Amino acid sequence: AANKKLLFLPGDGIGPEVMRQVRRVIDWMDRKRKITFDVSEGLVGGAAIDAHGVPLSDATLADALAVDAVMLGAVGGPKWDNPTDYTKRPEAGLLALRKELGLFANLRPAVVFDALVDASTLKADVIRGLDILIVRELTGGVYFGEPRGITDIGNGERRGVNTQVYTTPEIRRVARVAFELARKRGNKLCSMEKANVMESGLLWRQEVTKLHQEEFQDVELSHMYADNGAMQLLKNPKQFDVIVTDNLFGDILSDEAAMMTGSLGMLPSASLGAPDADGNRKALYEPVHGSAPDIAGRDLANPCATLLSFAMCLRYSFNLDEDAKLIERAIQNVLGGGMRTADIMAPGMARCSTTVMGDSILREL
Amino acid sequence: AANKKLLFLPGDGIGPEVMRQVRRVIDWMDRKRKITFDVSEGLVGGAAIDAHGVPLSDATLADALAVDAVMLGAVGGPKWDNPTDYTKRPEAGLLALRKELGLFANLRPAVVFDALVDASTLKADVIRGLDILIVRELTGGVYFGEPRGITDIGNGERRGVNTQVYTTPEIRRVARVAFELARKRGNKLCSMEKANVMESGLLWRQEVTKLHQEEFQDVELSHMYADNGAMQLLKNPKQFDVIVTDNLFGDILSDEAAMMTGSLGMLPSASLGAPDADGNRKALYEPVHGSAPDIAGRDLANPCATLLSFAMCLRYSFNLDEDAKLIERAIQNVLGGGMRTADIMAPGMARCSTTVMGDSILREL
Ligand SMILES: CC(C)[C@H](C(=O)O)[C@@H](O)C(=O)O
Ligand SMILES: CC(C)[C@H](C(=O)O)[C@@H](O)C(=O)O
Repeated sequence: AANKKLLFLPGDGIGPEVMRQVRRVIDWMDRKRKITFDVSEGLVGGAAIDAHGVPLSDATLADALAVDAVMLGAVGGPKWDNPTDYTKRPEAGLLALRKELGLFANLRPAVVFDALVDASTLKADVIRGLDILIVRELTGGVYFGEPRGITDIGNGERRGVNTQVYTTPEIRRVARVAFELARKRGNKLCSMEKANVMESGLLWRQEVTKLHQEEFQDVELSHMYADNGAMQLLKNPKQFDVIVTDNLFGDILSDEAAMMTGSLGMLPSASLGAPDADGNRKALYEPVHGSAPDIAGRDLANPCATLLSFAMCLRYSFNLDEDAKLIERAIQNVLGGGMRTADIMAPGMARCSTTVMGDSILREL
Repeated sequence: AANKKLLFLPGDGIGPEVMRQVRRVIDWMDRKRKITFDVSEGLVGGAAIDAHGVPLSDATLADALAVDAVMLGAVGGPKWDNPTDYTKRPEAGLLALRKELGLFANLRPAVVFDALVDASTLKADVIRGLDILIVRELTGGVYFGEPRGITDIGNGERRGVNTQVYTTPEIRRVARVAFELARKRGNKLCSMEKANVMESGLLWRQEVTKLHQEEFQDVELSHMYADNGAMQLLKNPKQFDVIVTDNLFGDILSDEAAMMTGSLGMLPSASLGAPDADGNRKALYEPVHGSAPDIAGRDLANPCATLLSFAMCLRYSFNLDEDAKLIERAIQNVLGGGMRTADIMAPGMARCSTTVMGDSILREL
């Protein structure tokens, strides 16, 4: 069989240096596990703007559509902070990838590693052992809704509009992913919206409830208003197993949950499309953290989130659960041994660079 | 001069019992401070639905428009959880009051009381001394934007729409309130939106920046994406002084900030309209907590948030700063003495009822 195809989009800032560690793991898999990937590479975000004037060229998009999975580093930086032209912003490249690849389900685990329980600003007993999964809708809602834009309304005044919109199939397909994931975990799903204020949220609640009735009665379903969700996450995060929510609430709530773990540099994400006739789905994997321009190019960044994203890639795109676990366990052991990049450094631990963290993980593998 | 007019809307759940403690403070002011209010009372929320079939009757709205300030308890409860007809929900009464009174600026302080620093799920050193003020836009955005609603799109499928919309004057007037409040505090304002994804957020950022240039250059202004805001609040809340944000982000971020303090039962809020020719503005004051139907009618609720809301009323509506401080200090002293309602109870403290908490505060006054 032909090798599986991966597209690497290292992007901006620390993107390239954390992605380099994934290359090393791929080399190791090639040698030791006899699993070979065909890896191509492209530009996205600011790097693409510099080279082509757009954050995602048609050629790169075509490449992304052709491969089995995309691994992305990070996009953005002050250099490209174009405040007015949305099409010339690094983020636009990421949003176009999500939309064009149809990556409607964004899986964002918020996991607290035992070795890092003290890194959080939350008390240890509140977050020790935390393991929740946020499923964020990623191709709909206010991110893509029309009409949108800024118009003049006279007297030097303007009006800015965005449209929050969801349809039955959009809600059902992401809820289905969430229900199915819940079944493989704690069997509990909490859906969050503002059904008390927004009709789009009311539709969300009704459709999730209907799907639950129809196909997932064995999963325990609850609903929460998103503002209460933001509070309950803080009050008692372990009450949750899987959370499903829309694009905008998911953006905010998953960042809140990520920061609660205290280790942004450790958190991966997967963005999945619909399965085709053969059960294959388009997919993009990226760390939750950003491009961190302040430390870029200095071999300081934590590569773990990107390596864990690659582990998700092995699991969700290639069904290589065992290999995913090998990587996850290697990272846990290295942390257990006291190795720490700057972002997760703590007293008594051994501070190391991006490369040395990569070395240690490879040695562990 | 005629007495100042107050409308009491105790609402549902614990609303009536916490509002009763405000009555007692008003009686005390009458006797000891020679300040007399004309207090009338009305129904809102579920209580109004039960009596009149609507969550805010025209008569009550007329009363609210006629007084100098409205004090509200809380609205809502499972009894009135009508999932489909928005006009028959308790929340609709609250939203109508906000809109009809033009209460566009919602002030929500997130303050950590020294005596309660351990009540938070956050580490004590992260939140000790925290004192931030969130100014939330309250009459615009996706809460009120048109078009909105759920429509059939065939095949048994539906489409839910809401509209996020802001205009230059809406942004400027709430930003002005926030800048002015920042001047009286730490002189720092952080504005939050998703200008990287939403044009309405981009307009928000541009208009806040323009107003800053024109009138508030002495205030330190920064901007943050709302998802990053949710993280920064957790990472280092004390970096903030005043935060200004829109209706929906404000709903979520202010609840996050409130829960961070660990003492929801302690947090007041003020909702203010535009000043008229005489400098008077419509205003509504209410605790941040909800109607807590599970403990309603059992003399267990914490009346402090409502009493502190009344202190805000004295300060913002009646310029009685000294009297506001008397109430605030009385509450601090009672907490310092070890009195705790159930919600803020901690080992070694004296657990008390709503009434006894009121007694202690009055004694302290
Ligand atoms: C960079 C930005 C467009 C993006 C988003 O808002 O979705 C980011 O915050 C994320 O969560 O992936
Ligand atoms: C009750 C609800 C309509 C309301 C809101 O969403 O504004 C509440 O959450 C609040 O923050 O006052």
